[in-house]
Amino acid sequence: MPVSLGDLATQFGCELIGDPDVEVASVASLQSADAQSLTFLSNPAFKEQLSSTKAAAVIMRPADADDCPVAALLHDDPYACYARMAGIICPPPAFEPGAHASAVVDPTATVASSAHLAPHVVVGANTVVGENVYVGPGSVIGPDCDIGDDCRFIANATLARAVRIGKRGIFHPGVVLGSDGFGNAMTPEGWVKVPQVGGVLIGDDVEIGANTTVDCGAIDDTVIEDGVRIDNLCMIAHNVRVGAHTAMAAMVGIAGSTTIGQRCLFAGQAGAVGHIRICDDVIIGAMSYASKDITEPGTYLASFPAEPAKAWTKRVGRFRRIEALQKRVKKLEDR
Amino acid sequence: MPVSLGDLATQFGCELIGDPDVEVASVASLQSADAQSLTFLSNPAFKEQLSSTKAAAVIMRPADADDCPVAALLHDDPYACYARMAGIICPPPAFEPGAHASAVVDPTATVASSAHLAPHVVVGANTVVGENVYVGPGSVIGPDCDIGDDCRFIANATLARAVRIGKRGIFHPGVVLGSDGFGNAMTPEGWVKVPQVGGVLIGDDVEIGANTTVDCGAIDDTVIEDGVRIDNLCMIAHNVRVGAHTAMAAMVGIAGSTTIGQRCLFAGQAGAVGHIRICDDVIIGAMSYASKDITEPGTYLASFPAEPAKAWTKRVGRFRRIEALQKRVKKLEDR
Amino acid sequence: MPVSLGDLATQFGCELIGDPDVEVASVASLQSADAQSLTFLSNPAFKEQLSSTKAAAVIMRPADADDCPVAALLHDDPYACYARMAGIICPPPAFEPGAHASAVVDPTATVASSAHLAPHVVVGANTVVGENVYVGPGSVIGPDCDIGDDCRFIANATLARAVRIGKRGIFHPGVVLGSDGFGNAMTPEGWVKVPQVGGVLIGDDVEIGANTTVDCGAIDDTVIEDGVRIDNLCMIAHNVRVGAHTAMAAMVGIAGSTTIGQRCLFAGQAGAVGHIRICDDVIIGAMSYASKDITEPGTYLASFPAEPAKAWTKRVGRFRRIEALQKRVKKLEDR
Repeated sequence: MPVSLGDLATQFGCELIGDPDVEVASVASLQSADAQSLTFLSNPAFKEQLSSTKAAAVIMRPADADDCPVAALLHDDPYACYARMAGIICPPPAFEPGAHASAVVDPTATVASSAHLAPHVVVGANTVVGENVYVGPGSVIGPDCDIGDDCRFIANATLARAVRIGKRGIFHPGVVLGSDGFGNAMTPEGWVKVPQVGGVLIGDDVEIGANTTVDCGAIDDTVIEDGVRIDNLCMIAHNVRVGAHTAMAAMVGIAGSTTIGQRCLFAGQAGAVGHIRICDDVIIGAMSYASKDITEPGTYLASFPAEPAKAWTKRVGRFRRIEALQKRVKKLEDR
Repeated sequence: MPVSLGDLATQFGCELIGDPDVEVASVASLQSADAQSLTFLSNPAFKEQLSSTKAAAVIMRPADADDCPVAALLHDDPYACYARMAGIICPPPAFEPGAHASAVVDPTATVASSAHLAPHVVVGANTVVGENVYVGPGSVIGPDCDIGDDCRFIANATLARAVRIGKRGIFHPGVVLGSDGFGNAMTPEGWVKVPQVGGVLIGDDVEIGANTTVDCGAIDDTVIEDGVRIDNLCMIAHNVRVGAHTAMAAMVGIAGSTTIGQRCLFAGQAGAVGHIRICDDVIIGAMSYASKDITEPGTYLASFPAEPAKAWTKRVGRFRRIEALQKRVKKLEDR
Repeated sequence: MPVSLGDLATQFGCELIGDPDVEVASVASLQSADAQSLTFLSNPAFKEQLSSTKAAAVIMRPADADDCPVAALLHDDPYACYARMAGIICPPPAFEPGAHASAVVDPTATVASSAHLAPHVVVGANTVVGENVYVGPGSVIGPDCDIGDDCRFIANATLARAVRIGKRGIFHPGVVLGSDGFGNAMTPEGWVKVPQVGGVLIGDDVEIGANTTVDCGAIDDTVIEDGVRIDNLCMIAHNVRVGAHTAMAAMVGIAGSTTIGQRCLFAGQAGAVGHIRICDDVIIGAMSYASKDITEPGTYLASFPAEPAKAWTKRVGRFRRIEALQKRVKKLEDR
């Protein structure tokens, strides 16, 4: 959707250096931008690309303005400013209200007339779908769910049952919400399934990535608070609570009944064991897992970056001989 | 489904301290229980919540009975007893036999008249669906499959082809069974696909979690024995055999042709390399992987729990200097 | 499809020791083969099974021919030769051209008349589906996609939008391509979504496993080059480039904007952080991740294989006391 630089500057509180009537109609990188494109400079590593950009305008910090060969939108946080402007220029696709003929809606469900149900959607018993909700093709919204206004399910999402979601949530393809938690009691005859009767409670402005799974609670609910961002292929187990504005990169796994604070960050392939509490503002590094309560904000790690196999294998060998080394030192001390 | 305490005590061999005619209609935690709820006390950490519970009855060990302010159902294994009673009070949802009009069944398939095919289900050629099977919305049961009685596919499950399943299996949304194994032969012209012609053979009473994948065998079958429990987002590669009653937490990956014994436990994000044998009763810890045959039951580990990044980084630095330390000790010894 | 040994030998350049008119109609392992089966001997570990095989013929290296009790097809690379012959004997299932009545195709889409759209398929606006493409049941091909000739989507695959694929690609159930990258800008009011407007560009002869996700680029495209093989449950983040003929085992995660060279191999549960470059011919070991640029071909590792928990726990304790050990050595040196 084309918009003028002047309108963008006004709406997002930027100083504009350039012609306010010029319109931008797309976003681009510094290198690929053309005369219709808006771009941004945030990471100093890309500053060398500034001089050759062909963009209509560049969002940047005031300090960088002197070096800009084209129009500049000055803001202290160019990346967040870009995110908001790009949301205007490239809005999510529009949709028509109403249900496709192939959608199957249980007679006890309530679907707002402004909502869109795409082909092959199924809506279960007692479920409520709010205003302007987009339910993409092949998605299954099971029974006893409550979907807040303006939520979007891109395609082939599955809500097994009893999932309540706030407003403006975005759920990517293959997401599974409300599937049974992993509850099993060992007996002499083998595992006995523990019925999982809780639900999933998701706040406002939550985004969950492709093929991520969030299990229902065993008895009480699994909870994802407002503003949480979860990437693809993550696992949130039963009765986990994820605090507001926490973000998890791909392939993060949180085991059952763990409580995570606000504004935490989990790097890719990280995790946490079950039944622990992690306080606000904790960062867990890549391929590392929290094994006990964390009560101090900060960064926590426990992984080694890959190194040449020969060097690593030697290191592992030495690691295995630390005990012998300790004994040798002890012997020297005893002399 | 409401049931009296007397009936529960009789059916599951508990001693009842309280009125046998009182009915329970739901399950709850000690804290959230009301006068219609059944709850349980198994983990001593929750014992302090016992005195204030408002439950109709609490399942507990005989030794805890004196402290119970409400009716008590006494059993040596309160958690397993709870699992079974909860299965009576909160049974899986009932369903009507028959196929929704939108289900597409190949003319060569055989579907029991007691089975339920939900909207947008597809059943492939030569496939047999047994009695009382529930195939949830959007599920695809491909060709040449055989589904035992009383299996349930919650929604959007996919059986690619040649999957044979015993009785009472539960398969959560997004499960993929029988997809091609990862078989590729390197040639000077690039990878050549190795056709994957085996199937998947799954025993009775198996439960597999959301978005987990089980590949078909390259030539012979991939096998999941009776009573196995697999959580979400796990990967079982071609020609793996998982022994009876083994359980895997989320995000476990087992590489091709590995054989796992009975009653093993894999913690979250654990794994095993291919072509090894793991004996019965082995536990693999979180984010650890078995790299060679394991012939002794017990717990196996190889991960470090996360610690503050500064401390960890120092440790990694020291680890990298072990060799220098060894040399210094050698020098001291030589003096 | 039955084929004579003579035809196979001619087509794939083998020397045949045996009757060229014998036909094989299936593939099997050395042990399970019968008189209609073709099998192979590549790994010397299986050579002991050769003497008792009941196969019609065995593909093997010339050096093994003397020990073969049945017909032999001699080739220097028996495994690749088997892969190619098995592709003739067990071709992918045939399909009828045309769309099932339940398939929903946007009027602006172009679907070749030789393509097959299975039940409950959805094809979005402006999408092009090439010749002989098989789109399996429940698959969603979103808007603005371009699917090359002879691609196959087995079932329940989802292409969110703007995915361009070359020829002969194979995409297994639950695959998600073109889902939004994980782009979020932190602000005092919480995360702001960064619109993800790039697409996904996939070359020829690519195979992607079940429930794997490939996100679209933030601005420019995410790229998977020709001949790449990706196993199940992997994650390719926005703006990653995967070089030709690279292969990734299950559960590999590549973070955003990382560039991977040609012919690399990633073992299971491995990964790479974002914004790095990995050169051609690099192998990353199981449960290890690349944390910075790799400029030399070779194998890189950073994981410990699991060992008995008691031994491991002791090792971790010693690792934590290296500093004390260093101090003791220093003290000895100072004496």
